[in-house]
Amino acid sequence: MTTTTTAHRIIEQPAELRRLIRSGSFSSQTSGQTPGYAQGNIAILPRDYAEEFLRFCQANPKPCPILGMSEPGDPRLPRLGADLDIRTDISRYCVFRDGIEVAEADDLMDLWRDDFVSFVLGCSFSFEQALIEAGLKVRHIEQGRNVPMYRSNIATTPAGRFSGPMVVSMRPFVAADAIRAIQTTTRFPNVHGAPVHFGDPSAIGIKDINRPDYGDAVDILPGEVPVFWACGVTPQSAIRNAKPPISITHKPGCMLVTDLRNAELAVL
Amino acid sequence: MTTTTTAHRIIEQPAELRRLIRSGSFSSQTSGQTPGYAQGNIAILPRDYAEEFLRFCQANPKPCPILGMSEPGDPRLPRLGADLDIRTDISRYCVFRDGIEVAEADDLMDLWRDDFVSFVLGCSFSFEQALIEAGLKVRHIEQGRNVPMYRSNIATTPAGRFSGPMVVSMRPFVAADAIRAIQTTTRFPNVHGAPVHFGDPSAIGIKDINRPDYGDAVDILPGEVPVFWACGVTPQSAIRNAKPPISITHKPGCMLVTDLRNAELAVL
Repeated sequence: MTTTTTAHRIIEQPAELRRLIRSGSFSSQTSGQTPGYAQGNIAILPRDYAEEFLRFCQANPKPCPILGMSEPGDPRLPRLGADLDIRTDISRYCVFRDGIEVAEADDLMDLWRDDFVSFVLGCSFSFEQALIEAGLKVRHIEQGRNVPMYRSNIATTPAGRFSGPMVVSMRPFVAADAIRAIQTTTRFPNVHGAPVHFGDPSAIGIKDINRPDYGDAVDILPGEVPVFWACGVTPQSAIRNAKPPISITHKPGCMLVTDLRNAELAVL
Repeated sequence: MTTTTTAHRIIEQPAELRRLIRSGSFSSQTSGQTPGYAQGNIAILPRDYAEEFLRFCQANPKPCPILGMSEPGDPRLPRLGADLDIRTDISRYCVFRDGIEVAEADDLMDLWRDDFVSFVLGCSFSFEQALIEAGLKVRHIEQGRNVPMYRSNIATTPAGRFSGPMVVSMRPFVAADAIRAIQTTTRFPNVHGAPVHFGDPSAIGIKDINRPDYGDAVDILPGEVPVFWACGVTPQSAIRNAKPPISITHKPGCMLVTDLRNAELAVL
């Protein structure tokens, strides 16, 4: 999940953006689009794997917060958007076979199977909006970069064939702002919630904070501490480990835009 | 405000403990007494100074959270205890003249004036109970010491003759526990609330973490970071700066026990 800033026109309504994507008129990243509405990571798995993946998400709610899940074979997720069709409403898909990415796709009309189950997982875009509204500056957004992400040594709880270390995203803050960021993101347990760590990167197995495993490095200024949140890349990594014969995700940054408001996801 | 652990008998009911103090049968520190009920710091000032002190507390709610305030000349605080008499219900008082401590007293019957105003300020005993109930270990309690307190370089907002730097208390935690402690204490804005800083002590003007200005040093173990909360000693220091002709506080550790439950002080 990435947060590249884009210069193109801002679409206000999720249903309109989904319609534009569905018709092929919008094929960019979705960062900054449909302000105030939640965007989600997606994972599509055969039913046989979906049951285990659901258990994996249930056991690891911080990296894998489920915003929605479809019935097997049903491409709709009506609670996230009355018109929503998971086969067409993402601007770019990644197709994996045996856990290895083999292709990208603009839609899933040809690939769809009647045993596919779709998962929509919360994304840090939602809490970043809350951080900004709280008056905090989010470094990678200010620097126009992707958020830096790292494979940590924090273990997830395995479920069936799904396992792997937690991937974390990092945002630097001075301590007083980090305290405010902890308070703010605590309100959003469905989009990763409170941080899992701050301070010494080596305490969670990160060797070089300036060399993220995913995304871009950002500047950490004097007096700032790195603050680490559970990241939606964790389930993608677990899916790679599970090696399902076929699985599909969104291309990083090309998220599912939903009718859920970020404010609805706040528990307070 | 101190937290020395005491070995004597635990009194369950605040009204009973106040009665024992009033009759002279209890003259110890109150840490650990009346579990579940809030204890408070007290400050008694002539009316002329009380108005400015109220403004100081209003401007600095984190170090100076007001749990109760009396009418001028009235020794009662019925909202904190129907029977409560501030002249007799503290086990040990400190008397200051022109900001300098000149005496201790067992009661205020002889010293009382009809222009005295009493303030009861929230105390970290309340949030420490919540930390322990959240499964966290509070180092100074575990070590049977007073909490370490430091004069920081965080400025308070002056009001009239009241001013001075914020005094902070420190409890060390590993990062994951510090995050939990931030969440837990955020629920208690009336007893200092969330921390004001964590990590580098020098960032808030503390030269040597092992030499607190008040209380006792505690061990900081490898992997732990010091976490700093606004402290109820701040107003005492501001009162010293204001140099009222007379003022009275509790002797550190000999708090006012109130009928307010700690759980009532939680905003969530």
